[in-house]
Amino acid sequence: MITPKFERPAPEWQRKLHEIIFEADTPAGKAFDFALLWCIMLSILAVMLESVTSVRAQYSAILHIIEWAFTLLFTLEYLLRLLSVQRPLRYAVSFFGIVDLLSIIPTYLSILVPGSQYLLVIRILRLLRIFRILKLGEYLHEADTLIRALRASRYKITVFLLTVVTLVIIIGAVMYVVEGEANGFTDIPTSIYWAVVTLTTVGYGDVAPRTVLGQAIASVVMLLGYGIIAVPTGIVTIELARASQPGVSTQVCPACAAEGHDADAVYCKYCGTHL
Amino acid sequence: MITPKFERPAPEWQRKLHEIIFEADTPAGKAFDFALLWCIMLSILAVMLESVTSVRAQYSAILHIIEWAFTLLFTLEYLLRLLSVQRPLRYAVSFFGIVDLLSIIPTYLSILVPGSQYLLVIRILRLLRIFRILKLGEYLHEADTLIRALRASRYKITVFLLTVVTLVIIIGAVMYVVEGEANGFTDIPTSIYWAVVTLTTVGYGDVAPRTVLGQAIASVVMLLGYGIIAVPTGIVTIELARASQPGVSTQVCPACAAEGHDADAVYCKYCGTHL
Amino acid sequence: MITPKFERPAPEWQRKLHEIIFEADTPAGKAFDFALLWCIMLSILAVMLESVTSVRAQYSAILHIIEWAFTLLFTLEYLLRLLSVQRPLRYAVSFFGIVDLLSIIPTYLSILVPGSQYLLVIRILRLLRIFRILKLGEYLHEADTLIRALRASRYKITVFLLTVVTLVIIIGAVMYVVEGEANGFTDIPTSIYWAVVTLTTVGYGDVAPRTVLGQAIASVVMLLGYGIIAVPTGIVTIELARASQPGVSTQVCPACAAEGHDADAVYCKYCGTHL
Amino acid sequence: MITPKFERPAPEWQRKLHEIIFEADTPAGKAFDFALLWCIMLSILAVMLESVTSVRAQYSAILHIIEWAFTLLFTLEYLLRLLSVQRPLRYAVSFFGIVDLLSIIPTYLSILVPGSQYLLVIRILRLLRIFRILKLGEYLHEADTLIRALRASRYKITVFLLTVVTLVIIIGAVMYVVEGEANGFTDIPTSIYWAVVTLTTVGYGDVAPRTVLGQAIASVVMLLGYGIIAVPTGIVTIELARASQPGVSTQVCPACAAEGHDADAVYCKYCGTHL
Repeated sequence: MITPKFERPAPEWQRKLHEIIFEADTPAGKAFDFALLWCIMLSILAVMLESVTSVRAQYSAILHIIEWAFTLLFTLEYLLRLLSVQRPLRYAVSFFGIVDLLSIIPTYLSILVPGSQYLLVIRILRLLRIFRILKLGEYLHEADTLIRALRASRYKITVFLLTVVTLVIIIGAVMYVVEGEANGFTDIPTSIYWAVVTLTTVGYGDVAPRTVLGQAIASVVMLLGYGIIAVPTGIVTIELARASQPGVSTQVCPACAAEGHDADAVYCKYCGTHL
Repeated sequence: MITPKFERPAPEWQRKLHEIIFEADTPAGKAFDFALLWCIMLSILAVMLESVTSVRAQYSAILHIIEWAFTLLFTLEYLLRLLSVQRPLRYAVSFFGIVDLLSIIPTYLSILVPGSQYLLVIRILRLLRIFRILKLGEYLHEADTLIRALRASRYKITVFLLTVVTLVIIIGAVMYVVEGEANGFTDIPTSIYWAVVTLTTVGYGDVAPRTVLGQAIASVVMLLGYGIIAVPTGIVTIELARASQPGVSTQVCPACAAEGHDADAVYCKYCGTHL
Repeated sequence: MITPKFERPAPEWQRKLHEIIFEADTPAGKAFDFALLWCIMLSILAVMLESVTSVRAQYSAILHIIEWAFTLLFTLEYLLRLLSVQRPLRYAVSFFGIVDLLSIIPTYLSILVPGSQYLLVIRILRLLRIFRILKLGEYLHEADTLIRALRASRYKITVFLLTVVTLVIIIGAVMYVVEGEANGFTDIPTSIYWAVVTLTTVGYGDVAPRTVLGQAIASVVMLLGYGIIAVPTGIVTIELARASQPGVSTQVCPACAAEGHDADAVYCKYCGTHL
Repeated sequence: MITPKFERPAPEWQRKLHEIIFEADTPAGKAFDFALLWCIMLSILAVMLESVTSVRAQYSAILHIIEWAFTLLFTLEYLLRLLSVQRPLRYAVSFFGIVDLLSIIPTYLSILVPGSQYLLVIRILRLLRIFRILKLGEYLHEADTLIRALRASRYKITVFLLTVVTLVIIIGAVMYVVEGEANGFTDIPTSIYWAVVTLTTVGYGDVAPRTVLGQAIASVVMLLGYGIIAVPTGIVTIELARASQPGVSTQVCPACAAEGHDADAVYCKYCGTHL
């Protein structure tokens, strides 16, 4: 059972189906993918429109039909995907397998829990397949650089986030004591929410200090946030710089002893000797 | 018709007109350009003042006259520009040709669609000609560096923007379900608008979470936005650093056509050919 | 009395106690630390819940008991810590010694000053011990890099903060004169608070300019803040880049005592002596 | 009259006065400077307190006396400064000379124009002398690095600011047409003010879009601002990196041919030979 592909070759219909549904090289596969993208976008648009009161009042019935039509279509597609792969379970637990499943569940769930159909917007994650269709290798490469940079800075960012969370809890409690419930800081969780809103420089203004001492502390917190916002930017910039460097090799030219060759160099760029 | 300049030399009046209108080397050309800049700035000021209720109440008639006077003047100038060039169509479809046309259309349009005259501020784009008059080569060079840096980071920024748009739609839908219409999240588009306002740390406060769960989710979104704001900064910093470096030459290897050689390279690093 | 450890070896019970309380290598020590972390987190949660009006109304008595139970537990632990170390005073004045003490005082203080029990959230600082338990060497290393970067940039950041404070006071006074008390700028401290809120791009909107001149000045201040926010980011990025580089060794020249040698230096670059 | 110092040596009293007032090397000079700093800070505090309604109601008379006392003191000091220097005019037009004059004018002006005494906070600029007293050479050096970095990036920042101003005017006019006067965008200047508030991510919320189209445009503007905020950060970071680099010289060791020596190196760091 180690290499099932060699033991039991996929039947013709399965290979054909796989080609159309999962790949974008053949005209049929491309047409399928484009049709799918349009369906996804239209279904998200329908979900959004349904949430608007004035639209719902007038077109409730038609939007309901559209929603169920798309859900049945995507359910059929999900079943076909399961059928077309050799190992259905592996697809079902893959990233896109889970997203595909989550994209149809909310409609069925909305029978039991009204309102859950709005979670259908999770379908937007299916649009990520777009990268495969457009063959945007360049984009994938750049996305990879970004992800590598973020992964390389995960320890620094964790330390940073823990510091921010600690700060935010202490600042929240202090402001709760200083401002009190009369000034909108009704409890410590609300004060912590205020501290996050302030430290991240969002500043809604739904909760704002009113006492002189509270405003003074808030001013210090803001200037602090000013310095703190610099830290993740610095971290990401450095890791991004490291991840996007082509890198210089440590090779030395055997003929002219020149150093500083690029990692992909085959010949010495100063004297033309083979490295 | 390939090289019309040699077939039919421009008549004297056309060359003279071109020199005055399009160039800034002669005293006449310089005077024309300065007069034009002042006209543009005054006309924009007039448009702005017209929008102020108290000013409009009192000086409506005079502002109307000024607006039409400038528009007729700019229309005349546009016609002269068309006349002074050898290939009017090429000018008409160039960046400045389109801007010059857009700068006069709104006034004529305002007869049919009241209010459209405020779009006359598009005239401000005409001020970009200022760089030519002041011969700010240094500025142009720097603008070029900025543009090259932004162009080099277009793939990364596209990936980044797509990620942000996806995030914003999902967050918007979740908050719509969590907060509900009673708390100001009246529909999914409004929730998405809130998500953009929050993630970009703008934070108007016209829509703000009121439930405990909503505030908790909002806090996470803000801390997320904190990290996310670091990404474009990192991208632009790195590309800017690369664009302002002497860096990589534009030389192409005559033997293997490879690009991306260092500025100090003498031999192609891939095939060893003398550059 | 110079090396007390050799003069008077710690008795068996003290060494055992120290191992359990202060270290996390033995199973007993690990169990103690985990139990402690849970107690800390639960006690902070209790403090937060107590501040919520609806919760306090219903569970006031039980939360009161929990608070005192945890405080007595932590007091006992504090005494045991003092007993288990050879030099109690040194522990008492160390960072964690002070935090441990501050974590129990507010409860006792709340008998005299009602409301001070909310300052118990200072207990969250005790959670920093978590790094020792999880043996997160990688995290400590990264935290160290961040701290070194911030320390290296302390002069630049001080100059920067002084500039911002000076700017904020002048802007505040100007806006107080321009806007006046009728528009919410009730006094100079409030105006300074507004200037901090604006310059840091927090923007609550509780105080906002209403006159045309005030809005014009505010616009300039915001664009200024735009440029100013770039400065600390730039500072931290550079110091972070330097701190995470292998960089400069800590070696000192034996002949001329010069510092700042590169990591790969063999001879002093100032006097030529072998390092 | 070219070298007046040699023609007419300063009399003893003038040299003595200059030493006390302008320098901080002698005990008398240091004492004078410290006394001055305290006077400045107290006088600023008095101005701030006077603006607070409740304080003014009660201590109006005493604050008035304090203000005039400090102003007379500073006027005396200003006259002494003029007397103690050889070339009074050169001092009078220097940065500190102008600041010293501006620090006393508002009080005299307040007789004619009530309210102008609040501009006395300009006195805070006098505190910049603190750097000289504390001999904070390190701070001056860092301030110099910051200033050099900002000066080096002035062309890029000018281009950037012109772009932002152009953008803000066009966005303001478009939003005025889209939202209209009923939704708070009362005129184009107000709309431009909104565009600045939004693009800089300040976001007061005093003016906010209410129509669906307006919110959609605002969302795009915010995401744009997201990318735009990255540009000045990138510019400053790079110039700061360049300004704070010690720089590597292009020198080659005459003995071992090693490169990459620091600009201040005297001996080769690899073989110890004099460079």
